[in-house]
Amino acid sequence: MEQHARTDAYVDRYAARAAGMVPSEIRALFAVVSRPEVVSLAGGAPYVSALPLDAVGGMIGELVASRGAEVLQYGSAQGDEGLRERICEVMALEGVQAGADEIVVTVGAQQALDLITKIFVDPGDVVLAEAPSYVGALGTFASYQADVVHVPLDDAGLVPSALRETLERLRRENRRVKFLYTVPTFQNPAGVTLSAARRAEVLEICAEYDVLIVEDNPYGLIGFDGEPMRALRADDAERVIYLGSFSKTIASGLRVGWVLAPHAVRAKLVLAAESAILCPSNFSQLAVREYLNTQPWREQIKGFRELYRERRDTMLDALAELMPAGCTWTRPAGGFFVWLTLPEGLDAKAMAPRALAERVAYVPGTGFYADGGGHRHMRLSYCFPEPHRIREGVRRLAGVVEQEIVMRDTFGGALPAEPRGVHTPGPDVV
Amino acid sequence: MEQHARTDAYVDRYAARAAGMVPSEIRALFAVVSRPEVVSLAGGAPYVSALPLDAVGGMIGELVASRGAEVLQYGSAQGDEGLRERICEVMALEGVQAGADEIVVTVGAQQALDLITKIFVDPGDVVLAEAPSYVGALGTFASYQADVVHVPLDDAGLVPSALRETLERLRRENRRVKFLYTVPTFQNPAGVTLSAARRAEVLEICAEYDVLIVEDNPYGLIGFDGEPMRALRADDAERVIYLGSFSKTIASGLRVGWVLAPHAVRAKLVLAAESAILCPSNFSQLAVREYLNTQPWREQIKGFRELYRERRDTMLDALAELMPAGCTWTRPAGGFFVWLTLPEGLDAKAMAPRALAERVAYVPGTGFYADGGGHRHMRLSYCFPEPHRIREGVRRLAGVVEQEIVMRDTFGGALPAEPRGVHTPGPDVV
Repeated sequence: MEQHARTDAYVDRYAARAAGMVPSEIRALFAVVSRPEVVSLAGGAPYVSALPLDAVGGMIGELVASRGAEVLQYGSAQGDEGLRERICEVMALEGVQAGADEIVVTVGAQQALDLITKIFVDPGDVVLAEAPSYVGALGTFASYQADVVHVPLDDAGLVPSALRETLERLRRENRRVKFLYTVPTFQNPAGVTLSAARRAEVLEICAEYDVLIVEDNPYGLIGFDGEPMRALRADDAERVIYLGSFSKTIASGLRVGWVLAPHAVRAKLVLAAESAILCPSNFSQLAVREYLNTQPWREQIKGFRELYRERRDTMLDALAELMPAGCTWTRPAGGFFVWLTLPEGLDAKAMAPRALAERVAYVPGTGFYADGGGHRHMRLSYCFPEPHRIREGVRRLAGVVEQEIVMRDTFGGALPAEPRGVHTPGPDVV
Repeated sequence: MEQHARTDAYVDRYAARAAGMVPSEIRALFAVVSRPEVVSLAGGAPYVSALPLDAVGGMIGELVASRGAEVLQYGSAQGDEGLRERICEVMALEGVQAGADEIVVTVGAQQALDLITKIFVDPGDVVLAEAPSYVGALGTFASYQADVVHVPLDDAGLVPSALRETLERLRRENRRVKFLYTVPTFQNPAGVTLSAARRAEVLEICAEYDVLIVEDNPYGLIGFDGEPMRALRADDAERVIYLGSFSKTIASGLRVGWVLAPHAVRAKLVLAAESAILCPSNFSQLAVREYLNTQPWREQIKGFRELYRERRDTMLDALAELMPAGCTWTRPAGGFFVWLTLPEGLDAKAMAPRALAERVAYVPGTGFYADGGGHRHMRLSYCFPEPHRIREGVRRLAGVVEQEIVMRDTFGGALPAEPRGVHTPGPDVV
């Protein structure tokens, strides 16, 4: 990265928080991921080519031509009211009852995370996050000098007893816990989902310790079995701040997400949004509004679910068939990701360059931990590559892991210690 | 505002910086500005209806249909490279020589302001700003707890001797001055332009005191006479961070702006952008790129210049003809705004509700000061209303001012003291 190679003449001028903004060590790897010969199981980009592009293009062209004076103009900082009304209908699919006035439209759910952290977090405040947690959230928390404390998850999501123990310990230490950040459904990166029973427990524990919950739910409608899960927000409107996004259900390039928050918090978020961007793009917002108003979006999302389910199946089948003994992985019921654990003594981060040499890419688990953990893990995404490429990618990866096992057995399991720290991710690892 | 009327149950949870995020007192007034019977000389919205909407709609529809897989997908945090190359050509019109790699595309120039403040400003650091200064910048600075120190301007822009005195005083006080924020060309709100001679002086003084300059230049290509002014950045690539925007030259609703910064700063800005929004919208960016590639944008901007010049002329003629003696105002050579000074003893903020009752709106000068100043001033914008409405607005305003003068002469000039403080503006006062 240039800023390491060059002397930064401005280094004494930066704010203290800028020290927490450091480029990901894995980013250099990603420069080669886009080469066509590499099978990337790394990125979290949705397969937007599956959209009806002709229909969408025609709809947007007509919208600009007929209503350009609105579409191309500034809007309100809170976001377009008509769009917010449609967002309420989308959230109702997950049991959320809310009014358009409680919503702030954001530049993807990422901006909602940024605004929430900006209004709530002083340097040194604690944010609780799953271990592992979404890399982009960890980057945002670091940029406001939050102290991220991880709470483990398992195949049924965040572990309530661990949450309680952590909160109890932090209470004894007199730490200010600002919120629990969680992706309860089809988690990024772990692919697991918080069970219904645990949802009730998590709400109860957070009420007991008076901790807010930030529920990040970009994948909630991308489930492969039955009806959507009931959101945490559906059962607590005052404690839960809910983040949603059209990035995975419609198109990531529009950058339209939202935050649903209690009224007083929503008012602060609008002010923070104004100072951050003045207002979200009417061009993007009204494209989404028009899409929801005129296109068969429920059927289109159903199509996405089928597409991603096939890819999930392909990946799980290939893993079962090809990966060497000692590897384990999660079995996602929705979303984009499988979380794979390597046999003891292997290091996913150290292995990544060797995997790239074998033309397969993944995200090492270390990116999803703020505390230096994650070395034995990796995130495998099945959202973007076509099924035959997923299978080929797993085949290559299995070969690399086999070689690593041979190396481990030959040279011993000692692995170099890695520096701790959170790194801002690129958009290619969302 | 609700957050005043309701009890905010979350008040003890907010970060310290949230205290600086308060709604503008003038926002309530703006709720009625959109009524058709009111002539609004308040907003800074460009007249986007003058765009060739059919052609733009057709171009965008075709773009989505033919290249949707790129347009609707995540992009890089730095922004689209093809767009950044075209931005270099736009800036070259103002004498700026820069490479695409030095640019970060942002959600309007407002986001560039936010990111710059985020990476540079610790609580209590000083930011220098013109008096008056862009209200949206003051809101951003407040949101990061900057201490804004104003430097006066006159008809030739920022006053160099005052800049030097201020820097000298701050040096004696051992204050950390992070940057000078300036809108040198067709300033918002004052409508004045920093003369060429003063540009050299300002650069020299900032070099002497080793202070960075943030040059915000949304209106640079909306000049009414001759060639565009040479940007400050054209003469100092290491000290000046330059902000640009397509909001005024093409369309505000796309939310596409940019920041041009020295390499090391640019690298920090990319990291800050990633944690804030992941990446700017490809949908908006590629629409602008395609527009610049395929449409006669130079001719379109020339058309905008002619449109706004006619409105500027209308406003200046009406002011000269109708305003009572004792009022003075600036004569902008470009941009969107006239800055009017009332006779002694009048208060633009106190007068605003009475003006609204007479169906004319403006922005009171107090919004443009962080130190409680600006009571005798108001910003009048001529960008959005059609000429006959501008004239009618000035006629109504002149009547209100006449009544105020009568009241002052009858009841004396004592006016209520106003609370100090910066307020986050709505997008309607950009």
